[in-house]
Amino acid sequence: MVFGVLIYPGVEELDFQGPWEMAGMWHKYGGGPKPVLLAQSDAPVSCAHGMRVLPDQTFATCGALKYLLVPGGYAAFEEMKNPLLTDFVRQRSEQVRAILSVCSGSFILLAAGLLQGRQAATNWKVIGMLRQAGVEVLEQRFVQDGKVWTSAGVSAGIDATLALIAGEAGEAVASQVQLNAEYYPSPKTYGTAHRAPAGAAYFRSL
Amino acid sequence: MVFGVLIYPGVEELDFQGPWEMAGMWHKYGGGPKPVLLAQSDAPVSCAHGMRVLPDQTFATCGALKYLLVPGGYAAFEEMKNPLLTDFVRQRSEQVRAILSVCSGSFILLAAGLLQGRQAATNWKVIGMLRQAGVEVLEQRFVQDGKVWTSAGVSAGIDATLALIAGEAGEAVASQVQLNAEYYPSPKTYGTAHRAPAGAAYFRSL
Repeated sequence: MVFGVLIYPGVEELDFQGPWEMAGMWHKYGGGPKPVLLAQSDAPVSCAHGMRVLPDQTFATCGALKYLLVPGGYAAFEEMKNPLLTDFVRQRSEQVRAILSVCSGSFILLAAGLLQGRQAATNWKVIGMLRQAGVEVLEQRFVQDGKVWTSAGVSAGIDATLALIAGEAGEAVASQVQLNAEYYPSPKTYGTAHRAPAGAAYFRSL
Repeated sequence: MVFGVLIYPGVEELDFQGPWEMAGMWHKYGGGPKPVLLAQSDAPVSCAHGMRVLPDQTFATCGALKYLLVPGGYAAFEEMKNPLLTDFVRQRSEQVRAILSVCSGSFILLAAGLLQGRQAATNWKVIGMLRQAGVEVLEQRFVQDGKVWTSAGVSAGIDATLALIAGEAGEAVASQVQLNAEYYPSPKTYGTAHRAPAGAAYFRSL
């Protein structure tokens, strides 16, 4: 059983690469499942800023998943209309211990029918849009609602994945993952862009 | 002129993927140079946790660089003995406005002759080893010494790159990059692993 990490053309790089590092450290230092990149086909995937990444497995070839990560990016709004992808996410969500979205990956969960009646987080730019779709959006770094975890934008997937690891494997394992990734970020906030009214509550007050 | 991001077999994923996202957001929202992956050959590069990435340019084909990022990983200790790679780093260091290492990428800068008489940061696991090589290591998240920036382990490259952007383009641009990457990390520290005496001063006290 592996830690499945979904990718698709135009996916935002750090959305999946931040969680990938945490999952990789969990696998290496804490017995977590191996992270594996999943895509609709085995062709190289060109990401939002142009990085090209090779999938490890396709929807057709991948075996059982223990966890599934669904990243975002502007391309998520295209992929939410792709039934091959949303069907894959819906079917695999039944089998996994937890499914995590990052950023606008929340809209793929929405299209897969996984956010009805749930609380969720998403990228600050699309909080209003997710609310209009009937989801109770919390303006937090990440939200856990049962087996569905959702995080805020881009870098927030790192924090959500580390919290998932703590929940699944315990605080001591999360502590080792954090140490090995040397994930003790600077608290510095540059300028004032984060104070605009459109921002999420959790960072507007920094 | 581009923002060159060096990769090599076994490179630690987040070491270059974190800075890549910051550089990508700078290019998209703040007029920064386009990030480009550079490798010795154009073959896919298998990273530390198994992610396979395609280089954009090789040492032979890449044009002028405005910045150069040198990531780490255990494989950095092999690459520091690779004269094709260390020659490339040394030659390009003369041309760039700044060169940044992440994690044990500091040992590639060392091998390229770029750390003599400088202050530097590195991954907490190899602070003693870099000191034994004669470098003044500061136990900080990152260090700037002239045009040479060095950061602590893995995730620290994100903070160093954002600081570089603030220095090069100003606080308002860094503010936009931070907002678009939604890089307002949780301050949570799990467990006690970071308090061990071997840790770096900047996180031992968290």
